[in-house]
Formats: sequence, structure tokens, C-alpha cells
Amino acid sequence: MKVEGKQFQTIWLNNSYDETIIIDQRQLPFQLKTSRLKAIEDAFYAIKNMAVRGAPLIGVTAAYGLYLGILNSKKPDFDTHLIEMADYLKSARPTAVNLAFAVDRVVNKCSGLTQKEATGFALNEANKLKDEEEQSCNLIGDFGVQLIEDIYAKKKEPVNILTHCNAGWLACIDWGTATAPIYKAHQKGIPVHVWVDETRPRNQGARLTAYELGQEGVPHTVIADNTGGHLMQHGKVDIVIVGSDRTTIKGDVANKIGTYLKALAAHDNNIPFYVALPSSSIDWEIEDGLVEIEIEKRDAKEVSHIEGWDGKEIISVRLIPEKSNAINYGFDVTPARLVTGLITEKGICQACKEGILGLFPEKKAYPASSKGGKFKK
Amino acid sequence: MKVEGKQFQTIWLNNSYDETIIIDQRQLPFQLKTSRLKAIEDAFYAIKNMAVRGAPLIGVTAAYGLYLGILNSKKPDFDTHLIEMADYLKSARPTAVNLAFAVDRVVNKCSGLTQKEATGFALNEANKLKDEEEQSCNLIGDFGVQLIEDIYAKKKEPVNILTHCNAGWLACIDWGTATAPIYKAHQKGIPVHVWVDETRPRNQGARLTAYELGQEGVPHTVIADNTGGHLMQHGKVDIVIVGSDRTTIKGDVANKIGTYLKALAAHDNNIPFYVALPSSSIDWEIEDGLVEIEIEKRDAKEVSHIEGWDGKEIISVRLIPEKSNAINYGFDVTPARLVTGLITEKGICQACKEGILGLFPEKKAYPASSKGGKFKK
Repeated sequence: MKVEGKQFQTIWLNNSYDETIIIDQRQLPFQLKTSRLKAIEDAFYAIKNMAVRGAPLIGVTAAYGLYLGILNSKKPDFDTHLIEMADYLKSARPTAVNLAFAVDRVVNKCSGLTQKEATGFALNEANKLKDEEEQSCNLIGDFGVQLIEDIYAKKKEPVNILTHCNAGWLACIDWGTATAPIYKAHQKGIPVHVWVDETRPRNQGARLTAYELGQEGVPHTVIADNTGGHLMQHGKVDIVIVGSDRTTIKGDVANKIGTYLKALAAHDNNIPFYVALPSSSIDWEIEDGLVEIEIEKRDAKEVSHIEGWDGKEIISVRLIPEKSNAINYGFDVTPARLVTGLITEKGICQACKEGILGLFPEKKAYPASSKGGKFKK
Repeated sequence: MKVEGKQFQTIWLNNSYDETIIIDQRQLPFQLKTSRLKAIEDAFYAIKNMAVRGAPLIGVTAAYGLYLGILNSKKPDFDTHLIEMADYLKSARPTAVNLAFAVDRVVNKCSGLTQKEATGFALNEANKLKDEEEQSCNLIGDFGVQLIEDIYAKKKEPVNILTHCNAGWLACIDWGTATAPIYKAHQKGIPVHVWVDETRPRNQGARLTAYELGQEGVPHTVIADNTGGHLMQHGKVDIVIVGSDRTTIKGDVANKIGTYLKALAAHDNNIPFYVALPSSSIDWEIEDGLVEIEIEKRDAKEVSHIEGWDGKEIISVRLIPEKSNAINYGFDVTPARLVTGLITEKGICQACKEGILGLFPEKKAYPASSKGGKFKK
């Protein structure tokens, strides 16, 4: 998508294939800065420190990180080193699904090979993963735009879409998940307006979603996270579309903290609530999101303090009394009963086992166990 | 309640009765500063600029402001001047109920008198109003504490209470509304812990509620507004208690934006959701809060920017892209169906007409009309 009028993706290789370049998202929307990842450690810290974030982008960054590790590997026992590097990357931010999924894909293509043999395969697999993630978002957009078109056909006035956090192209490679249908609608000339939840504590909505919508010229308004319910009560929201960090086989959705509250409000006001996700973020092994997904606690300083632009630079200011405590849960789980549908790269389905397996019949053999999963990001 | 170990109220007269002294709440929790109101204009701006806020405190400040206006009045036609001064004060922040209610009470005691006669009556009425508001909160505490005691009797572990915004003593004269049962429980030795919603955009929870709970030694944790639903899903909230800016005769509650979302989450998780309010904030003239209460839009800068402490002073930083828009609704309406009960100075009742009139039978004659009210604060 566009940044300052130029076409961008969130991650790309240099011409000699020995550096991966990313947009440093910690600087947005205040400054556009890119960062060069030259070694596996650079990729590790880009993920860990959230220079890149968003489930699909984390996966692709890790795949390129492993490629760089393989490219530069000098250890004699390559197969052992490959596993060490994979484990190292997975520990950067143990997001449930995409990070491990991406790293394992590269490992599978490279194990049993020499370092020199593996290098090309790793590069190819990382590129392929990137293309697939981009294509998934593209298809999510094509399926999801129909929902927006249908509302516009009835309403004949701009369609008001509420979204939470950033499930935009900055979280992916291009298009985004929740934003893909919005960008497609905008490009088709359907008038849309997006209510952007600021998404405390890290404000990915206010900072990233507002930024990327603005750069594409999509009309939008930033609101406090408290506001969505009021807007829905008064007919100012036609549809809610959010992303997902992890979706269970039964359709429970783990997403940024606060998503559940918006789902409740949508349900209470008969407003469709859709979740857009590539199937790479479906966890085929678990059913009950509330019981089986452990929610990460992040640094309380993200709640007690906030980053903003003072006119010259990004600074952090304290918001709470010096002696007060804060706590910071990163995600919550929206039960499937509150989700109108899932928008995937294979089409739109109901948020239930039958719906999901209807789109992904190859997964029917996959035994959903209740072994319980760790969910961290 | 206590500030730095000393007993405080939010507003008091000096010894010569010609100045009203307030805590400048815009400086909290970073600095404790008081401010002297010497003339009606000082009271007007203290309300307008939110040096004082909270329905009961706004009313009492206006009553003292009118007293100061009467004390200093030099215009020949006192009765006309009295009405002019009353209208002026009411326009400071046209909160629905308490501000007009307080000003009208002073006017009623003073009209038809000379300026010299009126001065003493105005002083007396302002003092009386202040005492009544304090006593209402005290009684709300006595009734509400029973709810907390009952939970503790069953649970035998610290009672987790979630509150939104600041319905604390800083919004009142003393005790607070939502906080009064909490302070009473704490003083009785019942272990309590309060989840404090930060309450964007103005962060009255993070700044004021956390401050006053901390000063009283009540255990508390500040959370992002997005967090309450997750806590409720996981059994970490035993009861929700919030305040109210305006309650209809049917029990619909207008309160700080975001209250509705917490009420939905409490309802979805079978957690009692109580609203604490003095009857001075019941609007006896309206029934349907969603239709009849107009919600104030405030300055978008409260959303696009935030105030915090940089280590030396309170500064404002920008949170959103320079070209993005923001919008700022101050309140939302929680329908009575989501409210477990109302805690008033006359006792606890169901959030419905029968419940409210059961506690306030003298209001039965009051014809609830559907004339529609403006709600601004």
C-alpha cells in the first residue's frame, strides 16, 4: 500500500539478498524510518522489540531471519545449528501460531542439507511464505469487500466500519486482514468511513491504523476505546471487522485486548461482527479459546506511561500516580457465539467447526485435542 | 478523605467567608495545588475548565459561586442580577442535573430579598447543599458496603471491585459515590482490591481514582479500558460499581463513555453491576435515556493528544497522525436492563421506575414527560 504516495510493503530484501529491510513501526506515525536486518539476531530483536509486529509479518520476518542465519552459518554441524537457530527465533515473541509455523516451514525445507544447499531453499521458502501471506490478504479483501458492497447497496450512504487495533497492511505484508476489504472497497469507489479504536495501551489503532488509512486516503476518525458502544447504540456503525492473533477450530478468536467488549456491543445492537484472518492463524489443535489460550501479560509500563510526539521527538510520559500499580494483558478471547463470520483466504464462513472445516476440508483429519496451548505475543 | 495523610474535602470556605478554596484537579495526581475562588467568575471558570468536575462537586461549586456573586453584587436591580448570575453559572458546563439544581436552590432562597438579606441565605443554602451531598455519599457508602460485605462473607478472599472514571470523593465533597462503599469496606477491615479503568480520553480513573485510592491506602491496579471484559471472563471481578451523571426515572444511566461496555461484559459474565448515585442526579422528567439524553461532544484534542508527567511538569503529547481526525463523545447510556441495582442515599433499589419510586415515594406525583433533555457536561 502507499506511504507518502509510494508503493510499499512492510518487508523486502536488498538486491544482493543479504539484508532484509523493514519499516521500523515503533516510529510511526511520527517518523518513517527503515531498518536493515543483516543477521538472525537483527531479526530476533526486530520481532522482540516490536519494530515489526502483527501475526503474519512476524512470521515472514522470522523466515527471512532464519534465511540470514543459514546464509551466515559457519558452525560445523549444520543440522543442529539449524534447530538452534529455529528455537532462538521462536523464543523472540512466542506468538502461538505464525512465528512457529513460518520457522518450521523453513526448517522442513532445509534439514538434511548442507549449509550451502540450504541457503537457496531457505530464501525460496521465505519468499514463498511472504507471497502466500500477501495473497491471503488479497483474497480476504476480495471476499470481505462483498460484505461492504452489500451494506452500501442497501444503505446508499457511506459505510461505517469499526476496527480495533491494527490488523492492517502494517501487520502483514500488504493489504492487511481487517483492512483488506476496506482498501478494496475504497479502490472500487464505495464510500467508506472507518472508526479507528485507539487501542490502549500500545495505541496501534491511533498510531498505525490511522496512519495507513490516511496514507491511502481512506476517511477515518480515531476514537477512544470507550466510544464504540455508544456509536453502535446510535446507528453509527454498520459493520465491525477486526483481525485475529489466534482462532480456535470452534471459532473463538483471540485478538487485541478489548475486542471482546466491541463484540458484545455489536451483538447487543445487531451489528455484524466479522473477523478477518489468514488460515495461518487458525490453531487447529484447540477448541475452547477461553480455557485453552493463555493470555500474555506485558510490561505494566505500557499502561502507566504512554508514548507520544512532543513536537520534536517521541517521548514517554507518566499517566498514573507514582505509587499506583498497573497491569497489562495483551489479548482477550471473543467467544464464537459473538462472531458473525470469519473472512479467510478461502471465503467467508460461520465461526464454528463446521463452518471452518467447510472451507478447509483438508483439516478434517486433524484431531482437535484439548491439550491446552500457550498464547504469547 | 485523606491527602498526604491530612483530612481533606474538595471545597471549603476561608475563615472570613469571602473566598471558596478548591483542589485544582487538573494538576492531580502529579501536583497538589489549591485555588482560591474570589468572585463568581472564578467559580464559572473553575467549572468550565474542569479544575472541579464531578456532578455533585460542580453543583456545590456553583452554589458557592452564586453566593460570592451575591456577596459582591453592586447592581441596583438585585432580583434581575440574581437571575443573570444564575444563568451565567448554569452555562459554565450545562450538566443536566446537579448544576442547575444547585443554582436554582440558592435562587429560590434569595429571590425577593435585598442583596444584603440574600447574602446570608445564599451562604446558608450553599453550606446546606454541601452538607447534604456529603451526607448522601456517606449514606450511599453505608448501604453499598453491605454488598461488598456479602461477597466477602461468601468468598473469604479480597473482594475485587471494578470502577470506571472517577466517581470518587474528588467528584463529590467527601466519600464519593461509587467509592463510598469501597472506603467504608476498607475502613471496616474488609479486604478489597479495585480495578481502576484508566478512562480515556481524560483519564480520570488513572489520574484521580488511582490517586485518591492510593492516598487512602486502598489496594488498586490501573488497567486500560479494554481490559475489564477479560478480567470478568476469568473471574477476577466480583462486582462493578460506577457513578452516574444522570439517571432516568426508568433507571437508564448516563455515565462516562465506556460504562455501557463494562455493563455488557458484567451482564455476559453474571457479575453484579451497580450504579451509586445521590438522588440529586436523578432526572425525574425523562424515561428513555438512549432517546432523551443528548450526549455532549467534547474537544477532539482530548483524544488526539494526552497529558502526562515528563518528570518535571505536565505536558501534552500527540498520539495520532497529524492529518487524522478524532472525535470525542463524553458519555454513554447504559440501559436499565444491564443494571443490577442503584445505590442511593435512601437505600438500594432495582433500576426501574417501581424501584426508584419505592425509595422516593414523594416523586410519584412528578409526571415523567418525554420532552427530551440536553445532556452536557
